[in-house]
Formats: sequence, structure tokens, C-alpha cells
Amino acid sequence: MERLQQQMEFIQEVDKLKKIGRQSYLTDSSRKENDAEHSWHLALMAILLSEYAPKEVDVLRVVSMVLIHDLVEIDAGDTYAYDTEGNKTKRQREEKAADRIFNILPEDQAKKVRDLWEEFEDNETPEANFAHALDRTQPIMLNHASEGKAWKEHGVVLSQIMERNINIPKGAPKLWDYAYENFIKPNVGNAIKE
Amino acid sequence: MERLQQQMEFIQEVDKLKKIGRQSYLTDSSRKENDAEHSWHLALMAILLSEYAPKEVDVLRVVSMVLIHDLVEIDAGDTYAYDTEGNKTKRQREEKAADRIFNILPEDQAKKVRDLWEEFEDNETPEANFAHALDRTQPIMLNHASEGKAWKEHGVVLSQIMERNINIPKGAPKLWDYAYENFIKPNVGNAIKE
Repeated sequence: MERLQQQMEFIQEVDKLKKIGRQSYLTDSSRKENDAEHSWHLALMAILLSEYAPKEVDVLRVVSMVLIHDLVEIDAGDTYAYDTEGNKTKRQREEKAADRIFNILPEDQAKKVRDLWEEFEDNETPEANFAHALDRTQPIMLNHASEGKAWKEHGVVLSQIMERNINIPKGAPKLWDYAYENFIKPNVGNAIKE
Repeated sequence: MERLQQQMEFIQEVDKLKKIGRQSYLTDSSRKENDAEHSWHLALMAILLSEYAPKEVDVLRVVSMVLIHDLVEIDAGDTYAYDTEGNKTKRQREEKAADRIFNILPEDQAKKVRDLWEEFEDNETPEANFAHALDRTQPIMLNHASEGKAWKEHGVVLSQIMERNINIPKGAPKLWDYAYENFIKPNVGNAIKE
């Protein structure tokens, strides 16, 4: 039972992801979403949108990746995409978090989850490219639906969005075209500063 | 682009799952969880605990199932496990919700998601059995971690829990033994009425 105990301890520990806030508002603008909700949304997107990955992807690996990609934020916190200072120390804070959190699991699973997280961070496989494309598209979709509230709050400039999302086309080109036309362009000059 | 538009419309619509409240408290007892958080938690459990399914299961199908299993509650609301009256009309309310929500998707995906949901509801395949075992175990784990707050609030009796969870052993026998010993037994006579 020791193995199951470690697994259940991990599952209980990661409940804390539900308390890690993000900057995107829900579509109805009532409040900001949290990391657990965000991860659920991405996992569902991975299943429904895998046809837009440029190469065939292992969908279970993509789903697993997005389900665990933000767990390190339990210790390291969410670093906002356009927070220049926070992004300087992000990697170091997250490595430390990965060491603590993933190692609650039995050794084989700790390694598997760590490898998945590293794969996501390195963003070199088709699975990681696609997962990143989803991770970038979902907040853009939410920001548009909530009338750009988060963009306005942070005074986000179009060039920042374009630079931040330069890799979406690599992971899902059609998705980027759609997001640009439908979620970004209509907000430029209003919620998004030029 | 029409196909992608339907898919994105669905992905935007289901954002509402984040507003559907459940009765279980988070492990820190600070607030109750919602359906999106719950679905994320189950998906992660499916990936980590599939070794406890009695037959080998298609993990991607289990994960897909738990990610979508509560979407009907966007229209039908969450019916608490021990709400006898609510459970009488549950199926009818949820069928209607499934008709509206799943059909936002392109036809092929609407059918796929509908079939997955029906499979979960019918609870006859090993994948559905395992998904149900997770869906039952997770709130028991949360209730224990939050010192039985939800059980106390609803005056839940041990026999109700045993009856409600009679099928967990079918979907994941070792998980049930663990949950009974570690999450249920310690609360009997205190948070759980005998």
C-alpha cells in the first residue's frame, strides 16, 4: 500500500493548484480563473483540437502535459506573461518546486511527470509545441470574451502579444490564424494598445 | 473555418463549467470546489492511478470521459449525491443539457462526446467503471482532508456512503480498500453519522 499512499498524498497535495490564481478572466468577466480550471480547459482543447497540430501528435501525452504543466506554480506562483521582472527568476523558482512536488510520487511516476514537464518547458517536440499553442490561445480567447479586461488592466501592447505568441503558429498554424483574426485584431486600439 | 468556429464556440461555452459549484470542500476547507476543478483532478488521477483498474483500460478514453462527464451540469446543475428528490429528475435534465451543449460541436465530435458521456452514465465498460471509481473516490478524499465538513453539513450517514459507493470496488478494488480504511473509517461517528 506504500505506493498508493504516495500517489494519494500527491493527489491531495496538488489540490492546491485550485488556489493558484491567473490573470485571465472567465468569459463572463465575473472573476479570474485559477490554474486547475485553466489546466482542465487546455486538456479538453487538446482532445478536441488535435487535428490542428502540424504533425500527428500523441494526444494522451499532450493531455498529460497540460494537466501537469502548472503544478510547479503551487510553490512558485503564477508569473504573468508580461511581467518582465518575474520572468527572470521564473525558471529557478519552478525547478525548485518541481523537485519538491513531483518527488511526492513513487520514483517511476516522479520521473515520468518530471520528464513531461521538462518536455513542455523545452518546447521542442510536436506534442510540446501543440501544448504551448493551446496554452497561449486559451487566455487570448478568454481575454477577448471578457472584453479585454485583463489586457486593459495590464496595459498590454500589441507588439508584446505578437512577441509572446510567436511560437503558436509552429504548434497549431490554423489555430493562430483564427485567434489573430477573431480574438486579437478586434481588440487592437481598444483593449490592446497599439 | 466553419468547423474551427464551432469548436471554439463550444470551448468558449464550456467555460461555464467553472461556475458550477459542488458540495466538496478543497483540502484546506476554504471554499467548495467547482466542476472544472473536479474534472481536472479526476483526469490527473486517471493518468496516475490506471494501474488499479481491474482490467487494462484505454487511459485516453478514461481521461476524455472525466473531462466531459460534468458538462451537462452547465444547464442541469450539480445534483448532490445524497439529494433524493434531485436525483429523480437528474437524468431527464441532463439529457436535455447534452442535446444543447454537445451539438455546438461539429457533428462528428458532437457524436463522439455524446457517446463518451453515455458510456460514462451507463457504467458498463472497464473505462466507465474506472472513471466512476475515481469520481467517487475524489470527493471522499477531499471530505476527509477537510475534516468531514461537507458530510457534517449534509448529515451524511455511513449506510448512504456505502450504498452510493457500492460500485467503486468494480472499477478499482484497491482504491476502494484504501479509501475505506483511510478516508471513511476514521470519520465514522464523528463527521459521518453511523
